[in-house]
Amino acid sequence: MAEDRKSTNITWHEAEITRADRERLNGHKSCVIWFTGLSGSGKSTLAHAVENALFEAGCRTYVLDGDNIRHGLNRNLGFSPEDREENIRRIGEVANLFAQAGVIALTAFISPYRADRDKARALAGDAFFEIYVKCDLDICEQRDPKGLYKKARAGEIKEFTGISAPYDPPLHPELTVDTGVETLEESTQNVLAVLRTGGIIP
Amino acid sequence: MAEDRKSTNITWHEAEITRADRERLNGHKSCVIWFTGLSGSGKSTLAHAVENALFEAGCRTYVLDGDNIRHGLNRNLGFSPEDREENIRRIGEVANLFAQAGVIALTAFISPYRADRDKARALAGDAFFEIYVKCDLDICEQRDPKGLYKKARAGEIKEFTGISAPYDPPLHPELTVDTGVETLEESTQNVLAVLRTGGIIP
Repeated sequence: MAEDRKSTNITWHEAEITRADRERLNGHKSCVIWFTGLSGSGKSTLAHAVENALFEAGCRTYVLDGDNIRHGLNRNLGFSPEDREENIRRIGEVANLFAQAGVIALTAFISPYRADRDKARALAGDAFFEIYVKCDLDICEQRDPKGLYKKARAGEIKEFTGISAPYDPPLHPELTVDTGVETLEESTQNVLAVLRTGGIIP
Repeated sequence: MAEDRKSTNITWHEAEITRADRERLNGHKSCVIWFTGLSGSGKSTLAHAVENALFEAGCRTYVLDGDNIRHGLNRNLGFSPEDREENIRRIGEVANLFAQAGVIALTAFISPYRADRDKARALAGDAFFEIYVKCDLDICEQRDPKGLYKKARAGEIKEFTGISAPYDPPLHPELTVDTGVETLEESTQNVLAVLRTGGIIP
């Protein structure tokens, strides 16, 4: 019992664990990797491919995308301009919490408005990598993985990005990948190269 | 180049990284540790003390508390009943995302309503540990670390939990700690013991 108390005292820290402490434990820096692009451009596929490669290298990562956000944290948001802005605001805040926790957070949302993405960037500071997942609209529309373009063309979905709602392409992204030209593996390697150059991973 | 491609192919996974994969990498299970109790009961202090002990043991952890939530994700919420509910709903969702990411998420909020806490529990499933940070109101009021009780007694804060707003104590918490009686170290060890029994840490 006395032994227990003694060993507990030794490991006792008054100070709170810092982001730098967590990064040291993980063996890599943390950041936000923000994938933006049209529906069907391959944001989520690329984010998960990058996560797979990082995980294989022993990094702590997490992908925020429609699958885990739309029916959870943001299930009380619709598609009005205010709700779209709030959608991206919350995602930026949560991604930044993950980065504070030492995790490489990857976000995969259309995030069509430059102003909203810039706010997410401002939150994350230097540790923000905007990846423009560029892809010609006609290729996205051919892929149409969720049948959304078809519905948008039929007028069943109003204000669909690229068809009836604007997309502001990034002006100074850390990387542009063209998924209509590059293979998934090439795009993945290009993202990893940016993270290496940025000092996030060794 | 061919060499690169080959080695990349070897590490290529089609499947997404699962929570179990992340737990294996981390060497511990993930969960939500939900601290609830009156203002001044010591929730945040205890959460950080538990985090310190877990971090020393090499665990991946993150504390969600007023410091990183109130001025960030939940800065657009006030203190109406609807906003209080939404406050806890978002915290429950984010804590669950951290748990999905393999992290031990610790939350330190008054969270006075049983119904709201039960929703957070339902999200996290088995991996939810409700810690009732019990402390006599008069001790909390003596501590009054932020001067809030004084303001509440003076009528400057309306609907203050314990004074002019209700607190529903947990009916079946995984653990009750009484910070008016136990030392911080004792309470910390009691939480760690619950995590060991629950199979979260070795």
